[in-house]
Amino acid sequence: MNEGQNEALRGYLSERRRIVDEALDRFLPGEDVYPPSIFMAVRYSLFAGGKRIRPILCLASAEAVGGNIETVLPVACALELIHTYSLIHDDLPAIDNDDYRRGRLTNHKVFGENIAILAGDALLTEAFHLMSERNLMEAVPPEKLLTVIHDIARAAGYFGMVGGQVVDVQSEGKRVDLDTLYYIHTRKTGALIISSVKAGALLSGAGEDELKALSSYAGDVGFAFQIADDILNVEGDRKMMGKDTGSDADRGKVTFPGLMGIEASRQKAKDLVQSALLAIRHFDHRADPLRMIAEFVVERRS
Amino acid sequence: MNEGQNEALRGYLSERRRIVDEALDRFLPGEDVYPPSIFMAVRYSLFAGGKRIRPILCLASAEAVGGNIETVLPVACALELIHTYSLIHDDLPAIDNDDYRRGRLTNHKVFGENIAILAGDALLTEAFHLMSERNLMEAVPPEKLLTVIHDIARAAGYFGMVGGQVVDVQSEGKRVDLDTLYYIHTRKTGALIISSVKAGALLSGAGEDELKALSSYAGDVGFAFQIADDILNVEGDRKMMGKDTGSDADRGKVTFPGLMGIEASRQKAKDLVQSALLAIRHFDHRADPLRMIAEFVVERRS
Repeated sequence: MNEGQNEALRGYLSERRRIVDEALDRFLPGEDVYPPSIFMAVRYSLFAGGKRIRPILCLASAEAVGGNIETVLPVACALELIHTYSLIHDDLPAIDNDDYRRGRLTNHKVFGENIAILAGDALLTEAFHLMSERNLMEAVPPEKLLTVIHDIARAAGYFGMVGGQVVDVQSEGKRVDLDTLYYIHTRKTGALIISSVKAGALLSGAGEDELKALSSYAGDVGFAFQIADDILNVEGDRKMMGKDTGSDADRGKVTFPGLMGIEASRQKAKDLVQSALLAIRHFDHRADPLRMIAEFVVERRS
Repeated sequence: MNEGQNEALRGYLSERRRIVDEALDRFLPGEDVYPPSIFMAVRYSLFAGGKRIRPILCLASAEAVGGNIETVLPVACALELIHTYSLIHDDLPAIDNDDYRRGRLTNHKVFGENIAILAGDALLTEAFHLMSERNLMEAVPPEKLLTVIHDIARAAGYFGMVGGQVVDVQSEGKRVDLDTLYYIHTRKTGALIISSVKAGALLSGAGEDELKALSSYAGDVGFAFQIADDILNVEGDRKMMGKDTGSDADRGKVTFPGLMGIEASRQKAKDLVQSALLAIRHFDHRADPLRMIAEFVVERRS
């Protein structure tokens, strides 16, 4: 990326982040609603400076097939609720036992373990409440919405994110092969990223061929994203990542750089981005945001 | 209830429980599916001898308005998945810290806290995956299914079950008034029971008047159920309840018997059942199972 592209991307991402943040704030109850502790805990983690990659991918995918971003905004936000719930539960003492995330104390350090568990539960539940809110998505045929809910639930559940997390947890401190690492990556991060891209397209009336190309793009981008995350975890400094770097290695977690080295991992991520771009080569300029995001994934510093 | 009615009810409930258990077994992956630990943990709690009250209410409500129980079975099972997830998370050390439930070790005592948290997450997610499975419910108009998903998500989330649990957790060891206790009861148990009854009726094409009557029935029954649970917690013996009785009081939890005494609580539960029966007085004999269940709630011994 040259200087100009970089600036365009930064502008695009911050504008999209603003749209997503505003919508999340609108969709979620305020901290004065009873019982306030749950809404404080939910909002604490939801508005903790997340990159909003999943909602932004969902919106960009809608645009790529000529859709309207307003229409897909509730589902885009629901994806962020699911992502946030997974972070809260992952950070719990019984799982990753992390005290910091994005430079701030984790949810359970501030609100206690009990409220953190319940805040995660509430976010996951609210994701489905929001996605089934017909009034917000009158333009979408109900059967499309059901397909999207079904796909996202699968991606978030035991055959997706939860399954990946289970294998990840059980692999700690063990020698893990590339197949297992691939399983963890594709389920824990990849599945929901693919669903994010598919959701935007499906809700915008994309055809089979478009969906196939976008799913392929998303699979590559999601995988590259996780590898880049692993690399940042090894190399990044505490300030950029907002948590103790090297913590995965300390915990005996297997990562891509750990298994195949930093350079090979970096090359793998770049190859994946090229493959992602290839998958959507027949899309017109409306897919440019998707193209930019793919490049951002491997160039980001935090 | 006389002897004959009692026998009819027992037969009805055990037959319904069998139908629900078989369907749950069919809908859920086996313990040999990868990663097996999550499916073992999920099935351990799901097939732990639950009464299946929510699914049975859902089926009975469908019948009461002339619906087909096969049609509502996936949603009925999803309600049990949500109920089971809530039990697993409630039992966690950070929340109620219970070692036993229904006479068996709790999920986290067998599988560890990390898997128990993830098993709860997986069950909640799978509930929405199952409810959005169009192939299983082709007879249901998609917009009805969305309404049901939306209603159940609300009942399970921060304005329902999770909200009730938050207030319950924060009330431990504190002096709590009747309003707060009512809030906890109606949210923590009542909301999902009302949604169970509404779901069965909605999926079977019930009209507005029928829905209103059934919601009123369910509110009363759910409340009576929780009071009866509180009474059993105080009076029941360990064998019947499968957990240490008196444990709510030990923990400083406020209960109905604790606040207004056993006798007044028992009377209140009976009054609620009468009110429930009154709400569905215009329904024909197809609502008899609902009538029986209402009476069962206050007469059950475990």
